[in-house]
Amino acid sequence: MAISINPSVAAIPHGERRAIKDLCEGRADLIDLMSGNPHQHMPEWIRRRTIELFESAPMRYTHYWGMPELRQRLAHRLRGECGIVADAETEVLVTHGVQEALYVVMRTLLKPGDEVLIPTPHYASYLANTVACGAEPVFVPLREANAFVPDINELGQAITEKTRLIIFSNPNNPLGVTWPDSSITQLAELAIRRNLLVVVDEIYRDFASPRPPLSIASLPGMRQRTFTLQGFSKSHFMMGMRVGYLSGPRQVMVHVRRLHYLVCLCPSRMAQYAALAAMECPQGLAEAMHREYREKLELLHIGILRIAGVNCVPPNGTFYAFPNCSCFGLSSMDLAVRLIEEAGVLTLPGTEFGPAGNGHLRLSVVSDREQLQKGIERLVCFAETWRGSRER
Amino acid sequence: MAISINPSVAAIPHGERRAIKDLCEGRADLIDLMSGNPHQHMPEWIRRRTIELFESAPMRYTHYWGMPELRQRLAHRLRGECGIVADAETEVLVTHGVQEALYVVMRTLLKPGDEVLIPTPHYASYLANTVACGAEPVFVPLREANAFVPDINELGQAITEKTRLIIFSNPNNPLGVTWPDSSITQLAELAIRRNLLVVVDEIYRDFASPRPPLSIASLPGMRQRTFTLQGFSKSHFMMGMRVGYLSGPRQVMVHVRRLHYLVCLCPSRMAQYAALAAMECPQGLAEAMHREYREKLELLHIGILRIAGVNCVPPNGTFYAFPNCSCFGLSSMDLAVRLIEEAGVLTLPGTEFGPAGNGHLRLSVVSDREQLQKGIERLVCFAETWRGSRER
Repeated sequence: MAISINPSVAAIPHGERRAIKDLCEGRADLIDLMSGNPHQHMPEWIRRRTIELFESAPMRYTHYWGMPELRQRLAHRLRGECGIVADAETEVLVTHGVQEALYVVMRTLLKPGDEVLIPTPHYASYLANTVACGAEPVFVPLREANAFVPDINELGQAITEKTRLIIFSNPNNPLGVTWPDSSITQLAELAIRRNLLVVVDEIYRDFASPRPPLSIASLPGMRQRTFTLQGFSKSHFMMGMRVGYLSGPRQVMVHVRRLHYLVCLCPSRMAQYAALAAMECPQGLAEAMHREYREKLELLHIGILRIAGVNCVPPNGTFYAFPNCSCFGLSSMDLAVRLIEEAGVLTLPGTEFGPAGNGHLRLSVVSDREQLQKGIERLVCFAETWRGSRER
Repeated sequence: MAISINPSVAAIPHGERRAIKDLCEGRADLIDLMSGNPHQHMPEWIRRRTIELFESAPMRYTHYWGMPELRQRLAHRLRGECGIVADAETEVLVTHGVQEALYVVMRTLLKPGDEVLIPTPHYASYLANTVACGAEPVFVPLREANAFVPDINELGQAITEKTRLIIFSNPNNPLGVTWPDSSITQLAELAIRRNLLVVVDEIYRDFASPRPPLSIASLPGMRQRTFTLQGFSKSHFMMGMRVGYLSGPRQVMVHVRRLHYLVCLCPSRMAQYAALAAMECPQGLAEAMHREYREKLELLHIGILRIAGVNCVPPNGTFYAFPNCSCFGLSSMDLAVRLIEEAGVLTLPGTEFGPAGNGHLRLSVVSDREQLQKGIERLVCFAETWRGSRER
């Protein structure tokens, strides 16, 4: 029997990541330079503390918006670390990771016909959520020549009377760059001047170097138009716990919270215990891990520069670099497939982040140093063989 | 600044439960006959096993649709316990509780203008999800005189060419009754004859007596039009873990899964560990708890029959009874407020489940036997005082 599907849901685009994963089935020899899903354990300190909390109370539903004491701490953290003023009771929501936060805020704000500015290449869910709301994406390129920093004039020119919001991540996944304060300030001015809402995904903020990015919600006039998304998945290596949070102006959050209740009822109690533990965790523990990742990212960049013909904007945030590999004359997907088959290296085609990513690969540092170095050697080797076969 | 909200999201109705909870703030003397959120610990066996699994692997994202081994077990369980055939790879999805399952399946199936048959009184999220999709609820009363069993003719008369699906829970929250096999068979015939989809919430199936309800998806011709929602929140007292699952026809599940990815990315790894542990748990452990709850439900019913003027359809499933308290001549909300203030008993107004619930209260058995008995005594006493004051 034929069953009709909601047209906006039927239109949700889906990536090729699955196809790549299928290609790897049973290949134990591959080196993972693809994933955003580290093999690293979460800090033992946090695990122990989470178990203690788990043993302390029945596994009841929590407050729908998240445990009050957790929201208090998050509000305190937002203020202290990011300069963002948010009321714990009405303006902070604990979510099933940043993914749920993205969904509920976009679905609450957007209606069919609205336009969404998406600097691109972009995290795929920004587009997918736009489409799932029946809204229209308007892509504005982030140019390699400009170190993937947004061109404010170009953004301004893309705004129409239908434009509701701009969405971006900072540090940027997949581009690996952290936008400078000056870009954030200019973006804020643009948002105020043109009456835009801002949805900013700061999930990678602890991995920025030399310091975390400026939070746009902390700038004058921005608190009432900005939704800030943060979480613990990356910062404390607890992706599978599913805990993030969202802050934004209360007049919208009252609706976001109702949708959140429908989607989730309440966040996982375990996840909230883990988040509390992460915030209690001796600071040095997490910082050491972040430093390690920043160093691996630098190693990756140095390695990429050894690959003949490949350019790469220096990464300074996230787990990723986004090298331009167009010298191979292949589509990103074809190159990624060849790298699996001929070099034993798993990478993600840049086209996972929109057509603007074509010619690029996203390389990640979620493997340990040894694997990372081995992966880089394989890429260098592949490029030499490739070049050799071309020159013959 | 004014920020416009998606009209379907802005229209999401919200209950009075919060108002009731606010009234109770700081009142340690109250007896909880209201909640669906047991104070009982999850079985220690399951907790220990969950911790073992937690310690065994990094806290990585899992497969988006749920760990393959978990889905295999769920498919096996659906087949063995419910007679439902569902392919683990394509037709089973692990969700953030039944609440997420409800959301993703309704949002995938419904579009503005569609009609949804809701037997009422009803779990509030069935209506809220209908509204959040821009669809229209069509309420069909479940009559006390008919022991809250649906009248199939009345349901049939409510169907129009816009009717897409019928949604109900069995056992029924808030009514406390389990529909007999004959009702389920008639419902299936109606669905086939009138080309309806069925969304059935079986979260309380382990609490039905004398045995679990017939699963409508197990009947001939129903697999391809039924979405079955089950979970571990109630059955193993792990509400805060947030783990449920959904099975349905693959042509729809492919879309449901994409929406699920947008909403959640993946279910909590901890929640999936707990679900695996719950299925490995010695069967006697869970059964003893279910028996205890069935016995408490019987005690509650016997107690209610002692309250002068109050009628109650005998409950045989869920944590609830749904007595008719219209003899007090108050609205459900007014009665619930008086019971807090004058009797020290916390109950839920029947109107939380739609206007058809007016005059009723939902009473629950989540407190222990002693509290439950004490709560009943207080209700009996309140009714006597009330009657006395009227007769003077």
